[in-house]
Amino acid sequence: MHIGLFDSGVGGLTVLSALKKHFPHADYSYLGDTARLPYGNKAPETLLRYTHENIEFLDSLDVDVIVIACHSASSVALEITESAKGTPVHNVIQPSCAEALARSEHGPIGVMATKATTSSQVYPNHIQKINAKAKVFSQACPLLVPLVEEGLIDDEITEQILQRYLGPLLAENVSTLILGCTHYPILEQAIGKVCGSSVALINPADSVARELAQLNNPSYSGGSLTIFLTDHAPHFVTHAQTLLATSEKLEIRHP
Amino acid sequence: MHIGLFDSGVGGLTVLSALKKHFPHADYSYLGDTARLPYGNKAPETLLRYTHENIEFLDSLDVDVIVIACHSASSVALEITESAKGTPVHNVIQPSCAEALARSEHGPIGVMATKATTSSQVYPNHIQKINAKAKVFSQACPLLVPLVEEGLIDDEITEQILQRYLGPLLAENVSTLILGCTHYPILEQAIGKVCGSSVALINPADSVARELAQLNNPSYSGGSLTIFLTDHAPHFVTHAQTLLATSEKLEIRHP
Repeated sequence: MHIGLFDSGVGGLTVLSALKKHFPHADYSYLGDTARLPYGNKAPETLLRYTHENIEFLDSLDVDVIVIACHSASSVALEITESAKGTPVHNVIQPSCAEALARSEHGPIGVMATKATTSSQVYPNHIQKINAKAKVFSQACPLLVPLVEEGLIDDEITEQILQRYLGPLLAENVSTLILGCTHYPILEQAIGKVCGSSVALINPADSVARELAQLNNPSYSGGSLTIFLTDHAPHFVTHAQTLLATSEKLEIRHP
Repeated sequence: MHIGLFDSGVGGLTVLSALKKHFPHADYSYLGDTARLPYGNKAPETLLRYTHENIEFLDSLDVDVIVIACHSASSVALEITESAKGTPVHNVIQPSCAEALARSEHGPIGVMATKATTSSQVYPNHIQKINAKAKVFSQACPLLVPLVEEGLIDDEITEQILQRYLGPLLAENVSTLILGCTHYPILEQAIGKVCGSSVALINPADSVARELAQLNNPSYSGGSLTIFLTDHAPHFVTHAQTLLATSEKLEIRHP
């Protein structure tokens, strides 16, 4: 199985990392659209165009399945279920909503996300399309991406900021919490510490991996990984190694 | 006098704000290259190309002087002193270096900047080109831009982060401190609180305004302001009003 993924930059590597745990022998092609990052502040129509272009690029590599490994791009592309060539396309939002509903046992669902994802209302809208009675509380957490990128993963400042962000959600007694941005699973431990064990954390990367596991007869080959970047991004490798929690050499190509 | 400025986004508005204090009756055209922001992580050759394109656009508006209101773009464009049409081009780096040297009285100079500006070494290189004996200490402060954009201007978290960033510079007994990123003057008060009154803070926007004040016979007209954005940036107006410390309606055009 050859899995193609894309994100605006390094964030989607946490999705890659989760997929690799589930499918260690699959081949991976990762596209980081670094020339046009970040996606979070682009207009929806612009983002939809980029998404189509990225899907077309991954399709040209003859991948078996495409994962939109970015919440902002996923939020404008819920309708895209296959590429022009008929390759199945998955996003990170739908499977995490389904998992949150399954695990919440009718309790309120919390969503941590970027400002763009939060204001798009994509999570509450999609969850309530499945279950109109579901209660969803969202919290924009704009400082978490820069804190992760600075490596302040286990740091008192990050904990203070998490307490501010999570306070309103905990006050609503959320029973599950969707980590609605690719960077957030890196902070899973710190988030768990602030939330306590009664809140189930949903990592959308795991949700999409479970969805892919239901594909018919996946066949495996060499476990290769190729990273394509649309611009020369000097700090990409350092960030990528942090997010993948690896020091292995990454093969970067510029298409 | 018609002044043209550009930045990748909102940051350069602090330069605009400083210029307006010095030249309240000038006309201003501000270009925010929001389609291609941020500039801080782009390759130098890419940034130089964008800089030339932005200068050409401002030139087409028949401005009298152009200010590169962005430290990243300035850092690759120190050699550009005039446009193709002969319009004088100023950057924010050279005047702030000159002012820091004048005010430091041979004491060490501190520079706070983004990661990209810090690793380019443009400040120490330029300062030491003027005075080879000058001591310069730089500190990358990557979390300050997101903190400012979140409005955490007067906040204990920001103060804690400033203490971490400024600690190493204060340990070197810097006598002047260049606020080497357009967002930092917004934190001038908080920075001053951490540094104490013995450190002179250099706002590059004021330095470039003083440089422009030396132009021959500037003539003034209506005090107009037009903002041009290369992409529809939904949060631009909110950020712009924070950075300009104004609630006035901003006229936005998309060229």
